[in-house]
Amino acid sequence: MTQVYGKVALIGLGLIASSMFWAMRRRGLAGTVSGFARSRETRDTARRIGLCDTVCDSAAEAVADADLVVLAVPVGAMGAVAEEIAPHLKPGATVTDVGSVKKTVIDTVGPHIPEGVHFVPGHPLAGTEHSGPESGFATLFDDRWCLLVPPPGADPEAVARLRLYWEGLGSFVEEMDAEHHDLVLAVTSHAPHLIAYTMVGVADDLRRVTDSEVIKYSAAGFRDFTRIAASDPTMWRDVFLNNKEATLEILGRFTEELFALQRAIRTGDGDHLHAYFTRTRAIRRGIIQAGQDTDAPDFGRKKVER
Amino acid sequence: MTQVYGKVALIGLGLIASSMFWAMRRRGLAGTVSGFARSRETRDTARRIGLCDTVCDSAAEAVADADLVVLAVPVGAMGAVAEEIAPHLKPGATVTDVGSVKKTVIDTVGPHIPEGVHFVPGHPLAGTEHSGPESGFATLFDDRWCLLVPPPGADPEAVARLRLYWEGLGSFVEEMDAEHHDLVLAVTSHAPHLIAYTMVGVADDLRRVTDSEVIKYSAAGFRDFTRIAASDPTMWRDVFLNNKEATLEILGRFTEELFALQRAIRTGDGDHLHAYFTRTRAIRRGIIQAGQDTDAPDFGRKKVER
Repeated sequence: MTQVYGKVALIGLGLIASSMFWAMRRRGLAGTVSGFARSRETRDTARRIGLCDTVCDSAAEAVADADLVVLAVPVGAMGAVAEEIAPHLKPGATVTDVGSVKKTVIDTVGPHIPEGVHFVPGHPLAGTEHSGPESGFATLFDDRWCLLVPPPGADPEAVARLRLYWEGLGSFVEEMDAEHHDLVLAVTSHAPHLIAYTMVGVADDLRRVTDSEVIKYSAAGFRDFTRIAASDPTMWRDVFLNNKEATLEILGRFTEELFALQRAIRTGDGDHLHAYFTRTRAIRRGIIQAGQDTDAPDFGRKKVER
Repeated sequence: MTQVYGKVALIGLGLIASSMFWAMRRRGLAGTVSGFARSRETRDTARRIGLCDTVCDSAAEAVADADLVVLAVPVGAMGAVAEEIAPHLKPGATVTDVGSVKKTVIDTVGPHIPEGVHFVPGHPLAGTEHSGPESGFATLFDDRWCLLVPPPGADPEAVARLRLYWEGLGSFVEEMDAEHHDLVLAVTSHAPHLIAYTMVGVADDLRRVTDSEVIKYSAAGFRDFTRIAASDPTMWRDVFLNNKEATLEILGRFTEELFALQRAIRTGDGDHLHAYFTRTRAIRRGIIQAGQDTDAPDFGRKKVER
């Protein structure tokens, strides 16, 4: 693989940015990579583990001369970071982000981008429940989708280069408009996360079912919820606050359906339940066929050694 | 491992019974294993793949002379099966089951068990989203819990032998009373399954988000829900109809909490969201420490080769 950008600056050094660094290095996608994180502890960790060629003590320093600037901070912090780096951006550079919400990122970051700098928002659909600079790994984006959301009038060459870059990181790339992105993600990610957080919170509240029992017997479905509900609290707070409308709409639909199923349970309407469960089973097959999961026994998880 | 029962009869030849057969054979837990399934197609498949030493054409024939009879049919079918086999049970034999609900199984099966036959209900907390005789595998129960629910006055020797048998299948064994079992499982399994079914149904309904998009971009949380929601429709219909009270109670609590979080999103109460998400994250650590899941990157799933 050839180099796609001369200098890449990573602003924020969590799971996504650190995985990007290792994936860039694996393929030689960048000449040099600078990084910045707001917390001194994170910068120290990054220096210790060799994350980035240079770890800078200010965002301004990190973005100087960068051909690509990646905003990898929680969605709620994007606007302030954009304002801070704006005067230091190189003409002709591209600014992108990795936020899970696109409309508000465009609204808060866009106005700060100077004339002559390209702004091409993005969103890699990849992650784990871990966070921080030490949680990244080079294969995180392999065979996962990255959605690019270029604003109307975006420079086609800048978009094409960013696409090449994400393909180099291992992803499939698709373009989408911001509103549609936020609705699709509300369905596939934001609402499921809130639901998982809720269910885990309920389990935690039930004093009659002791914590240890909930944990001990978690294999039967609840386990998957706890994994989702272990995701980064700050990141997810910002996602919900910044994709309010679409998330609340999907949750409204969800509650409606849940009430209908609860009613079927209460009235003993087995046919309704059976028909519903048969329909949802078909969707799973589609996901296996689309290569976005495995159908290996025990969900493809390696057995935990004891 | 030594033999625990001379003859074991498996009634129902789905995921659980077939996994039990392969796990028994791995350790030599039974002298001989007979099997019966209501559908001729299932019996033919079982004969073809060598599932059970003898596949019988009636349940009566299968249980004749058996020292252990395992009812591995949907919870709603347990009572009728028990009635059918009752006259053919050997004195001194043990009848057990693998149903996900225990109170109604005891109520419907118990009265049919003749004097001199032991009845020790059980529930292995193990499974995958696949079903049918070909989905079983020998390691399904390894390091998973099996809950035994002996009714008051159960013969201690019969219980001890069944415990030894499940330990031989690879499980950890715990005893519990029926009511407590049904509440714990409502939290760790039944409510999460209904919620996952609901969310997948909602996604399927949304015409603006095409099926292919929901599937394509499923990696971001929704994927875990589709796996849960691909579980056997008949089995789960019966679970909900037979653990009505506890499931509806937990779902009521769930809805309450969900409304509180929706309100926090609507009013922009980021502190409430952050505190909630921080609390749920801690539960995950407990599950990893309890050995019921892995914290490997990408959830320990092998990457799907394309």
